[in-house]
Amino acid sequence: MTPHPSTLPAVLSPVITPFSQDGQPDAQRLARQCAWLLANQVGLAIFGTNSEANSMSVGERIDALHALIKAGLPADQMMPGAGACSVTDAIELTRAAVDAGCAGTLTLPPFYYKDVPDDGLFAYFAAIIEKVGSSKLQVYLYNIPPVSKVGFSLPLIERLIKAYPKTVVGMKDSSGDWAYTESVIKAFKETGFRMYAGSETFLLRTLRAGGVGCISATANVNPKAISSLAAHWQEPDADARQAALDQIRGIFQRRPMIAAMKAAAAHFSGDAQWAALRPPLVALDAAQREGLIQELNSVGFSMPGL
Amino acid sequence: MTPHPSTLPAVLSPVITPFSQDGQPDAQRLARQCAWLLANQVGLAIFGTNSEANSMSVGERIDALHALIKAGLPADQMMPGAGACSVTDAIELTRAAVDAGCAGTLTLPPFYYKDVPDDGLFAYFAAIIEKVGSSKLQVYLYNIPPVSKVGFSLPLIERLIKAYPKTVVGMKDSSGDWAYTESVIKAFKETGFRMYAGSETFLLRTLRAGGVGCISATANVNPKAISSLAAHWQEPDADARQAALDQIRGIFQRRPMIAAMKAAAAHFSGDAQWAALRPPLVALDAAQREGLIQELNSVGFSMPGL
Repeated sequence: MTPHPSTLPAVLSPVITPFSQDGQPDAQRLARQCAWLLANQVGLAIFGTNSEANSMSVGERIDALHALIKAGLPADQMMPGAGACSVTDAIELTRAAVDAGCAGTLTLPPFYYKDVPDDGLFAYFAAIIEKVGSSKLQVYLYNIPPVSKVGFSLPLIERLIKAYPKTVVGMKDSSGDWAYTESVIKAFKETGFRMYAGSETFLLRTLRAGGVGCISATANVNPKAISSLAAHWQEPDADARQAALDQIRGIFQRRPMIAAMKAAAAHFSGDAQWAALRPPLVALDAAQREGLIQELNSVGFSMPGL
Repeated sequence: MTPHPSTLPAVLSPVITPFSQDGQPDAQRLARQCAWLLANQVGLAIFGTNSEANSMSVGERIDALHALIKAGLPADQMMPGAGACSVTDAIELTRAAVDAGCAGTLTLPPFYYKDVPDDGLFAYFAAIIEKVGSSKLQVYLYNIPPVSKVGFSLPLIERLIKAYPKTVVGMKDSSGDWAYTESVIKAFKETGFRMYAGSETFLLRTLRAGGVGCISATANVNPKAISSLAAHWQEPDADARQAALDQIRGIFQRRPMIAAMKAAAAHFSGDAQWAALRPPLVALDAAQREGLIQELNSVGFSMPGL
């Protein structure tokens, strides 16, 4: 079976969120970053982990979404994060995404309580889907146990797909556990389930196994090369392309990743304000920043057009 | 040095939150539970972990607080939970608590990102304290690494006390790690730091070591016996009282605790709606419920006056 139809591209980025000097989300800078990603064939998984979305209030997230739409950015390229600890927050975020015409939502499980039963996780997703009550809603399950500490068992995924076959359409898997990713692809491919790897490290393997692409932090800084591999993955140079992606990924991954991506955005755009993060995350210090830029320069990395 | 002055009692309860049939927080039932706790000398740590506070939106929590004040419950007996993943949410919750006249706030660290630097955690608390900007604010650090997966190092606590000596006045320690609790009491007793154990299991040890009491889930169901130990801890029967508390605690702790406390509240009040929880938590099933009530009956437990 072919994957569920979608307007979303093979590669999306959890778009980093710029903060102004007074610590507020900066919708203008965010709109520019989104436009640059789209120009590099990367879709907009706004309000993800790497967007510091959970460090923003529900109102701040919805205001930013509306500002992006108003700035002319296409909702059919958007998959906003819409999960929360509180099911009422998740319902509000999901409704706003559907009302704005977003192509999908990326939904964390409720992540405060640990070791919760699948029945409770199912009830959370059921409440969101039924309260929003829209045939336009396409939910992607966001599996990121290294951060959320709450994951998706295969029986839970199966139960959700069976209950909501046209709504629960896919997953972003940031487990970093390829055996898990592969098992989910295999188990649900026949339902049209769309698997996005959580990092370009797994992009080629995911596409070869029947997944649809990746939603990756470093697509914020290296979008063109990542989307190009997705476009040319069946060509002979695919493994070489993957190796090149892995090299750049490694440079960011060896550092606090979100801070490092923002430092790179600040450096290559010439806009120092990009380096700001919200607590509890902190910006790179001068020495870390210098080390990052030196290493990026040494491999000829840049962010053209930013 | 004696502890920072406070109107709060030695024992508080993270008050369980009743939900109506349509899943909304039920302020009327909540007010009755609060009045019953106060009548048993237990203060109101509303919006804690056992209150399912993180399963509620910021607006739902503030509305519930206002409803309790309107119902005549005393703000000087309240320590609402006011932490959040988003610092803007934490500021809003803290401001509402201060404006309502609450005696303190119980503040979780931001708990989405893991392995964050102390600098980032300090920045979160500094932002809350400085944006709220009230000399009336008394912040209690909420340490619950088994759930939040983010804790407080001793150097972080020291830095917060030094920066805000009249505002960062205490902690609820739900680490379950007595060596940690004791080390925090010893390190900061001379500053007037008020330590509440996170469970009555540690109540006697905490009082003997120089702490001020406990904030405990099971104070929702066994308030009188717990507050009585706090009132009589220097008397000869204190160890026997502690052992009796531990027996009741054990009965609840061997089950999903929040669901078990709500089942007990439903049973002893005759109000079945008390058993409802919000996802991702689920109510006890019939067999679990029966087992709980049987065991409680076998030790002569009841909730008089509820």
